[in-house]
Amino acid sequence: MPTDIEIARQATLIPITEVAKNAGVPDEALIPYGKYKAKVDTATLPTTSNGKLILVTAVNPTPAGEGKTTTSVGLSDALHRIGKKTMLCLREPSLGPCFGVKGGGAGGGKSQVMPMDEINLHFTGDFHAITSAHNLLSAMIDNHIYWGNSLDIDLRRVTWRRVLDMNDRALRQIVGPLGGVSNGFPRETGFDITVASEIMAILCLASDLDDLQKRLGDIIIGYRRDRTPVFCRDVKADPAMTVLLKDAILPNLVQTLENRPAFLHGGPFANIAHGCNSVIATKTALRMADYVVTEAGFGADLGAEKFMDIKCRLAGLKPDAIVLVATVRALKMNGGVAKADLTKGENVDAVRAGSVNLKRHIENVKKFGITPTIAINHFYLDTDAEIAVIQEMAKEFGADAVICKHWAEGGAGAEELAQIVATKADAGAPDFDQLYPSSMPLADKITTVATEIYRAENVAIPTAVRKQLKQWEEMGYGEFPVCMAKTQYSFSTDPTQLGAPTGHEIAIREVRLSAGAGFVVAIAGDIMTMPGLPKVPSAEGIYLDENGQIEGLF
Amino acid sequence: MPTDIEIARQATLIPITEVAKNAGVPDEALIPYGKYKAKVDTATLPTTSNGKLILVTAVNPTPAGEGKTTTSVGLSDALHRIGKKTMLCLREPSLGPCFGVKGGGAGGGKSQVMPMDEINLHFTGDFHAITSAHNLLSAMIDNHIYWGNSLDIDLRRVTWRRVLDMNDRALRQIVGPLGGVSNGFPRETGFDITVASEIMAILCLASDLDDLQKRLGDIIIGYRRDRTPVFCRDVKADPAMTVLLKDAILPNLVQTLENRPAFLHGGPFANIAHGCNSVIATKTALRMADYVVTEAGFGADLGAEKFMDIKCRLAGLKPDAIVLVATVRALKMNGGVAKADLTKGENVDAVRAGSVNLKRHIENVKKFGITPTIAINHFYLDTDAEIAVIQEMAKEFGADAVICKHWAEGGAGAEELAQIVATKADAGAPDFDQLYPSSMPLADKITTVATEIYRAENVAIPTAVRKQLKQWEEMGYGEFPVCMAKTQYSFSTDPTQLGAPTGHEIAIREVRLSAGAGFVVAIAGDIMTMPGLPKVPSAEGIYLDENGQIEGLF
Repeated sequence: MPTDIEIARQATLIPITEVAKNAGVPDEALIPYGKYKAKVDTATLPTTSNGKLILVTAVNPTPAGEGKTTTSVGLSDALHRIGKKTMLCLREPSLGPCFGVKGGGAGGGKSQVMPMDEINLHFTGDFHAITSAHNLLSAMIDNHIYWGNSLDIDLRRVTWRRVLDMNDRALRQIVGPLGGVSNGFPRETGFDITVASEIMAILCLASDLDDLQKRLGDIIIGYRRDRTPVFCRDVKADPAMTVLLKDAILPNLVQTLENRPAFLHGGPFANIAHGCNSVIATKTALRMADYVVTEAGFGADLGAEKFMDIKCRLAGLKPDAIVLVATVRALKMNGGVAKADLTKGENVDAVRAGSVNLKRHIENVKKFGITPTIAINHFYLDTDAEIAVIQEMAKEFGADAVICKHWAEGGAGAEELAQIVATKADAGAPDFDQLYPSSMPLADKITTVATEIYRAENVAIPTAVRKQLKQWEEMGYGEFPVCMAKTQYSFSTDPTQLGAPTGHEIAIREVRLSAGAGFVVAIAGDIMTMPGLPKVPSAEGIYLDENGQIEGLF
Repeated sequence: MPTDIEIARQATLIPITEVAKNAGVPDEALIPYGKYKAKVDTATLPTTSNGKLILVTAVNPTPAGEGKTTTSVGLSDALHRIGKKTMLCLREPSLGPCFGVKGGGAGGGKSQVMPMDEINLHFTGDFHAITSAHNLLSAMIDNHIYWGNSLDIDLRRVTWRRVLDMNDRALRQIVGPLGGVSNGFPRETGFDITVASEIMAILCLASDLDDLQKRLGDIIIGYRRDRTPVFCRDVKADPAMTVLLKDAILPNLVQTLENRPAFLHGGPFANIAHGCNSVIATKTALRMADYVVTEAGFGADLGAEKFMDIKCRLAGLKPDAIVLVATVRALKMNGGVAKADLTKGENVDAVRAGSVNLKRHIENVKKFGITPTIAINHFYLDTDAEIAVIQEMAKEFGADAVICKHWAEGGAGAEELAQIVATKADAGAPDFDQLYPSSMPLADKITTVATEIYRAENVAIPTAVRKQLKQWEEMGYGEFPVCMAKTQYSFSTDPTQLGAPTGHEIAIREVRLSAGAGFVVAIAGDIMTMPGLPKVPSAEGIYLDENGQIEGLF
């Protein structure tokens, strides 16, 4: 079988100007970045549609791979094939992790977005702009302190750190500035990876440049001795940060292997942030196309919940249909099979055992008023009997479970899924609702997600955390949704508890306020905001070959 | 009088595709970045010329401003006006300093390159790519140490730091990683600004991607306990860094206010590096145009010397003509007038007194075998008598001194200069030679520049520095040119000694080896490689107005 990169290299891309024309983007709204990438000037783009929104989510991720992005691409290409004017909206990948574990890419097989090397490297510079805006604020904070600290910021309580789009564990925790009077006042601080920046979440939730600047100004950068917050706008950084982000806020247009349009825009962490592409890209796509296919990070417990409770709530969006991706292999792993044993022939019992994971995700999604369509992302070793188990189980919930072969066949392999999903999207989701109302107290929101979605028997919120939440409510942040940060591998906080664990406790270790983004982060378990490189980083194998092609990136 | 930004906003830009067509860049070699910026794919560009190279340099900079870039733009536009096929090559400005002291821009008045806001912000992402490549190496070094340090790098002798394109003094000197086993081994380190990265110098000296990768591999990142060097290629970072720089190495095409083509590419520090735009841009321009106008950083003592002894030596280039920019105001300041007193009417004596600065620069340039043409960059308060002093003095050296009004009039104001310079360039510079041969011992090279150019009476090179230079010679670096890092405001190391100081000592504090770039840096005086922000940074006044235009950047 050809690899993703081999398939990608055989692809014939068309100029981005043509992709744009086909998608109805007029010349004056297209800002090219090279021959195969562009930004779209949303201000000059005409509104030609009022599209239906289709969310693609998945079972809990396993090392077997589920293919959520691949399915999003395949579904979008398939919708085009059955005559539906469609737009695909995905996240941009982050540069740093490409040098850690071999990976990168967007989609796989015959369902990829192109040009994959440029997308995985600097792309159109959005993440670099976020890094610059973030670190400008950091520099202005220390500069304010250096010149007299008239805002009385408590040096021990500066919460705003710095960011780099690089896996660099050595920067997680540092002390500086050292070197005496001319460098400033030493304090403990550190760096996160750029995708963990609150600015990334803000860029992805902002409705326009004015809203972006308002949210940037709302960022809390630290506290005084009396615990009153100091805002970004207090150090007067928000307008200049907005200037740095003025191009980054525009959606990036690329194409699938079948030359269909796709927006790749924004890529917030899916644990300490909401893990969805930008609201601006999604809303722009809805103005251009009749169907918009988008995805959410991780499994449905984290990704779909945040998509609906954070992104849809804050942006006034709602999904018209939801696709839940599952694979035979992933369900086998949820049923106790080790990765090395996945190729050892049919194992219907394991699929049945692991289907509890899928079942719980279906139940969860239905709590939002929508019955998902199950996309069985086909692998050539899957047997009919294994697939039948999944279809049976889906039927219990009144859900369709469709075999999709877009990895091997492109959009042609997902036409049945496209037909079903289009029909469902046309019918809409009149019963859609968020899981909890905005008016619910913050601690109760955490408990609701933990019990309703994660199925915790017990939710442990320490007194100090409850006090903190109370304080934020008094400060006016009580209407914020909560953004749960926990492992993506399990419904519980223990990544080894696959399937559908019960009887577990969700313990909230810490809460953080993303006052600019507009949510409260509740951290359950260890969350890493600056990854490290492995012993042999993939960077060691990345190079330009004699033809100037990039090797080793995927 | 209209401000630079007002003039810029009244300009009518033409699409970069048209600029390219006029410059002879075929469609297939043009990689657009938005409507008014592009990169040029040098591999597919045909060679249509064998141009003459014109260097623009200046007297020592003063707070009055000399207008070296402005004159480069004006001269280039003027050459076009008199029918000469010309290409302009300038450096790219750095993002970080834009948020410090109000500034930025490229050129001034009616001699500017456009679009100035984009050029001063992220432009085509070159500096972000350099930041990424630099910090990838940093991360791989600490990662190597973390996983067992099989190269035996001495933690105290890691010389490779990190960079950000931001004025952030708090990062100059830090300790990290802290936090225990999972983060690594604490050590002292810090950040420089991106333009001070050796990678910036390398990008600007590399002849192509292969040479770039070789030079990256040659970087010394630190030493073992036994003082043997550890190279970038020892941690296997150079191929991946090359991948990150594969687009950054291509020259950026923009236009002047008169819609003439300009390459803006690279921007190394002019103290710890050589301060010139990229060799690739210059060589590409020479293939396309009959005349190429380029500039070097700071005054002729630093900029022109490095242009000839470093850039031309390493790239096999030579200037066919040299323009030396002076202003009445700058010479007055060199003659002892304070900035506040510059508007107090004619002062012929001050101009005469300050002309010693110009005189010495002319003498210096002649040591390279070329008699410069003096461009008197006209200011509306200049009087005929003041200008006459400069012209008289130039005549002593057989040099033309031409009044140029390109600031007020654009290219039309520099046609006389263009005629003279074109004639000189056509005649060429058969006597051109570097100041010293590559075979000269490193310490003697330092002494030669210090006595011949800076006119030091005494050059103090401490024993430890001499020993270090000797060691590098033994290691095979003896053929490298020296790159002097000293104040740009004076021939001496004391920035207050204007005019033509004599009897001073040049004391070399420290030497550094830029083994990848290919030069030895000799530091005389305090050199700052990470600037700070002022009490009221210009960032506080930068914002998007109601029309989406950037205010406060210039």
